Amino acid sequence: MANTEAATVTNKQIIFPDYVSGFPKESDLNVTSTTIDLTLPEGSTSVLVKNLYMSCDPYMRICMGKPDPLANSLVPAYIPGKPIVGLGVSKVIDSGHPDYKKGDLLWGLVGWEEYSIITLTLHSHFKINHTDVPLSYYTGLLGMPGMTAYAGFFEIGSPKKGETVFVSAASGAIGQLVGQFAKLMGCYVVGSAGSKEKVDLLKTKFGFDDAFMYKEEEDLSVAIKRYFPEGINIYFENVGGKMLDAVIVNMKLHGRIAVCGMISQYNLMDPEGVHNLPTVLYKRIRLQGFAVCDFYDKYDKFLDFVLPYIREGKITYVEDISEGLESGPSALLGLFEGKNVGKKLFVVARE
Amino acid sequence: MANTEAATVTNKQIIFPDYVSGFPKESDLNVTSTTIDLTLPEGSTSVLVKNLYMSCDPYMRICMGKPDPLANSLVPAYIPGKPIVGLGVSKVIDSGHPDYKKGDLLWGLVGWEEYSIITLTLHSHFKINHTDVPLSYYTGLLGMPGMTAYAGFFEIGSPKKGETVFVSAASGAIGQLVGQFAKLMGCYVVGSAGSKEKVDLLKTKFGFDDAFMYKEEEDLSVAIKRYFPEGINIYFENVGGKMLDAVIVNMKLHGRIAVCGMISQYNLMDPEGVHNLPTVLYKRIRLQGFAVCDFYDKYDKFLDFVLPYIREGKITYVEDISEGLESGPSALLGLFEGKNVGKKLFVVARE
Repeated sequence: MANTEAATVTNKQIIFPDYVSGFPKESDLNVTSTTIDLTLPEGSTSVLVKNLYMSCDPYMRICMGKPDPLANSLVPAYIPGKPIVGLGVSKVIDSGHPDYKKGDLLWGLVGWEEYSIITLTLHSHFKINHTDVPLSYYTGLLGMPGMTAYAGFFEIGSPKKGETVFVSAASGAIGQLVGQFAKLMGCYVVGSAGSKEKVDLLKTKFGFDDAFMYKEEEDLSVAIKRYFPEGINIYFENVGGKMLDAVIVNMKLHGRIAVCGMISQYNLMDPEGVHNLPTVLYKRIRLQGFAVCDFYDKYDKFLDFVLPYIREGKITYVEDISEGLESGPSALLGLFEGKNVGKKLFVVARE
Repeated sequence: MANTEAATVTNKQIIFPDYVSGFPKESDLNVTSTTIDLTLPEGSTSVLVKNLYMSCDPYMRICMGKPDPLANSLVPAYIPGKPIVGLGVSKVIDSGHPDYKKGDLLWGLVGWEEYSIITLTLHSHFKINHTDVPLSYYTGLLGMPGMTAYAGFFEIGSPKKGETVFVSAASGAIGQLVGQFAKLMGCYVVGSAGSKEKVDLLKTKFGFDDAFMYKEEEDLSVAIKRYFPEGINIYFENVGGKMLDAVIVNMKLHGRIAVCGMISQYNLMDPEGVHNLPTVLYKRIRLQGFAVCDFYDKYDKFLDFVLPYIREGKITYVEDISEGLESGPSALLGLFEGKNVGKKLFVVARE
């Protein structure tokens, strides 16, 4: 039932001014202010929310490029002049939708702004029913990145106990979970990351068997062979380009490559060439792109799997939290320089 | 039971002198002659055969290169000074193996020579039980290429009625069958080939819906889009390199690429770079290398499937047959220039 009290408030927004090519800059995102009526009109079936936590994810770089039928098969392009759209945790202020009432919490796609009016479609938003864990987790461990790690590792990776697993960008929102899932499955797992701090996290906090700094390696293929002298069963791919080339030749027979992301390629005008694809044939490798949106029907199953581990302290999660909507642009762009340590998000409001 | 009559005869052979780099030449293969005793020693468990038909297959180029742990995951390197090894149809002259007796026919790995002594291992050789079809078919339609087309299209391609299928090197030993299997499944299928004669064969003989000459296209990606304005569900990959790059961007969401071969890459010192791999992610494509050796347990099932179609004239097969063991080197090397029209083989002896 729509609220009848009208209250107009300011609504700060982060606007996407125009399509970006190459490396995005902070000036590619503008902070502005508008106003919003905190009451939905009578008869609306939408949900009006106050945004609490906002997620910064590498895929968002794809949305910033010129509309492209290939890239937009995965994610829609942003609309110039409109707010950035991302995943967020929000609280319901007013609702015309039967599934939501004032005070409910949900996560899903919202504009980068203080208040949003949401139109619900299948799997666009999920109600938050478990609040004994940090709410911010619904931007990461319990949201899209968690579900991505789960679907990619278990459904695409088809892991078996004792297998070897390599994760690139391993301390990120998704990678840190893939490593922990791999350990829970009884696999041997090694991760790569871009700083000593991240490598330490992998080994001490997330329980990776080993980890290395990719930037310090002259020959990535040699580095990978050092950790996997017998080869890799599963590669969880977040990076693409040279890293993929180096991994392919280190795969075992019948290895699986779950292609979750290729962050090294998103800012390039022309993606790097991958030269070692004949090895996909020689080693009978399955290289498979996947997107979490194809797996959201398993979201409840994922929660049943992961929540007990969180409560028992058997899965941990590192977040890198910025404060305030204004921090959004630098928070997002820092991803592409690897500035974040763990899951990057920012707080719009704490309640 | 081993034969007790001794008979020593000459045994012509094609010798592999040394590892090849780059494009192989006829001088890379030598015809020589030795002798062989046509009786197995008492107690042998081997099989002595007279070789009838010999198969020329693109994978053999991989065997000619320097031993390489990656390539040799698929096929072993040839041994300098020893005969070329390939798939052939042979007749048993003497047998110490309980499964074979004099006069039996079989197909499998043999040396390029008139007579061979075979040691049987799992799936190394198959007895020929159906002789109402041309014997030479066991180098192609009813042998490794047929089984490869079947496994690659059905097991890796996962076709559904009404889907779109693209086959490169489509008039070859495997491609011509993939096209026909695709039509039997109710798919729309287009093939590429290297000459007008081959393109005509695809359209008139093998029932492809359409076909084009890849050499005449300035932009392969544009050419493919012409035939698949809505995209490709299944790409049966025989070529690699630029062709793969052009196909990837024309794949449909959730498309499958069955990587059977990459003939364009085998003679290159450094394989070409494939630049469009981010599309594997955008379109959630499964790109999967496979090898027929992983599917030979389905060989009887394949025969049950394919033999009735052959007998009813619903599957046809074009062979390109050279005469005599001496024709072997040019027959094989012609593959890499696309000289063959259909399945390339040569006759060693007709009975």
